[in-house]
Amino acid sequence: MNLVAIDWGTSSLRGALLDANGRVIDERSAPRGILSVPAGGFASLFDELFGDWMQLAGTRCLISGMAGSKQGWIEAPYCPCPAGLAQVAAQVIAIEPGRIALVPGLSDEHDGVPDVMRGEEIQLFGAVALTGIRNGVFVLPGTHNKWVRVADGRVTGFRTFMTGEFYALLSTHSILSRTIDASAPLDEAAFLQGVTQSANNEGLLHNAFGARTLALFERMSAADLSSYLSGLLIGEELRTQSLRAAGEVVLIGAPALTQRYALALHAGGVASRALGAEATWAGLHALYRTLTP
Amino acid sequence: MNLVAIDWGTSSLRGALLDANGRVIDERSAPRGILSVPAGGFASLFDELFGDWMQLAGTRCLISGMAGSKQGWIEAPYCPCPAGLAQVAAQVIAIEPGRIALVPGLSDEHDGVPDVMRGEEIQLFGAVALTGIRNGVFVLPGTHNKWVRVADGRVTGFRTFMTGEFYALLSTHSILSRTIDASAPLDEAAFLQGVTQSANNEGLLHNAFGARTLALFERMSAADLSSYLSGLLIGEELRTQSLRAAGEVVLIGAPALTQRYALALHAGGVASRALGAEATWAGLHALYRTLTP
Repeated sequence: MNLVAIDWGTSSLRGALLDANGRVIDERSAPRGILSVPAGGFASLFDELFGDWMQLAGTRCLISGMAGSKQGWIEAPYCPCPAGLAQVAAQVIAIEPGRIALVPGLSDEHDGVPDVMRGEEIQLFGAVALTGIRNGVFVLPGTHNKWVRVADGRVTGFRTFMTGEFYALLSTHSILSRTIDASAPLDEAAFLQGVTQSANNEGLLHNAFGARTLALFERMSAADLSSYLSGLLIGEELRTQSLRAAGEVVLIGAPALTQRYALALHAGGVASRALGAEATWAGLHALYRTLTP
Repeated sequence: MNLVAIDWGTSSLRGALLDANGRVIDERSAPRGILSVPAGGFASLFDELFGDWMQLAGTRCLISGMAGSKQGWIEAPYCPCPAGLAQVAAQVIAIEPGRIALVPGLSDEHDGVPDVMRGEEIQLFGAVALTGIRNGVFVLPGTHNKWVRVADGRVTGFRTFMTGEFYALLSTHSILSRTIDASAPLDEAAFLQGVTQSANNEGLLHNAFGARTLALFERMSAADLSSYLSGLLIGEELRTQSLRAAGEVVLIGAPALTQRYALALHAGGVASRALGAEATWAGLHALYRTLTP
């Protein structure tokens, strides 16, 4: 029995053909996120992109990510925390029963304000399966970064931080954009200077202006300022976390991002390890095993 | 002796003709901020806009704001804190000696990161003159909001917060823009809900995402969400301030903004009073009296 594992996001999608043991036979990706799909067009696009894989005997497909949102193929209502693979499996939405199904995201709530994720829960369950770490803190950096608490393999709660989006807003649309070279490679010293600065508890609204005045007084180059701003933002996230007793933090995402979180955590005396795209396939395979024991 | 008092900003300018006692004889404004003035074009634009006032016998002119920046008429180097009227007067830059002069802004520094203001220092000295409050906390809301500490009529230090710019970025360029009606009038309850939320110490990067999920779960209207976001931002500023012992806070700016700060401060048990454009004219007149005793 093969599994077609798909992470269908907002702006792009990735798919993998996995064998019964979860090994990757083939992978492909396409710039066909849900925002590019016309209403009613999901089934035909799916056939176009993955029809050949689906023709293999007994193949099933699980799709995670924004394809299960209101703007997606079919809406898969959020699964409330605490939630493990069993709770998510119980809320999977069949598109073609026994053949294609959508994975729900997770929801949480703090002081009357909801929080949500779609797709990250699968990466997280994959990271739990790959690392064997069933208790701890997992971080999924990105446009909307997720900090997730896991106990006995289940998500007990999480919070979203708009770190990636704020970086894009500030470096391209704000007054800072005039003196920041957002395309510059990471400068570790400038990045860690930003992380340290954010610990002053004066808040991002104030500290971000420092990226303007450091340029005005020619104390930091446009290239280094992009790393400094990144450090300010990631440091601001870390400021709100209690990590001393959390043990090793598991980072899941693109190496260019997880590297920055590892640096900032290390500066604060917190160990971490990183996983990449393999977590998605491992997570969808683990869910598949839960659905078809 | 009349004084032509001018606040020449980035996107617009305002001028007033004052008599020897500082009373406003006439006022005018124009959409001719420094960004609209071609290189070398400041003198002729000044003549065009204020030549008639300057022809009155013995009239002098003081110009505050961005006209003294690198991109302005002539650069007036920042006056470092602590600074009162005497220190600012000592650094005024003559354009036409005895006739037209530029007022320098102020600079401060915290932990190696500079901070700056241009124009707000004049509003502040005007507020000190108008209220008689020579010790306390003064707040000047705007795109780049200033929190200023004043002792014996001198600015001992200040910090900038990019609150107005963050509101514009988030409400027009971020994912929040899809579900926020930024043109809606202030809703006090939603605003104060945002102020309260920001006190959870989870930081703006997290709390801003709540303005997305409250819309996603249809728990707040697009109109109320603009007030909620405004409350999150202003509350985040207040979170970083120690105001209990500061006495009455003096707010200087447009009523639509000072009203919000007054509400947020009042919710935290802190009294405030508000001043508007009159502070600029009072400040330039006070500086004029310092220059020509």
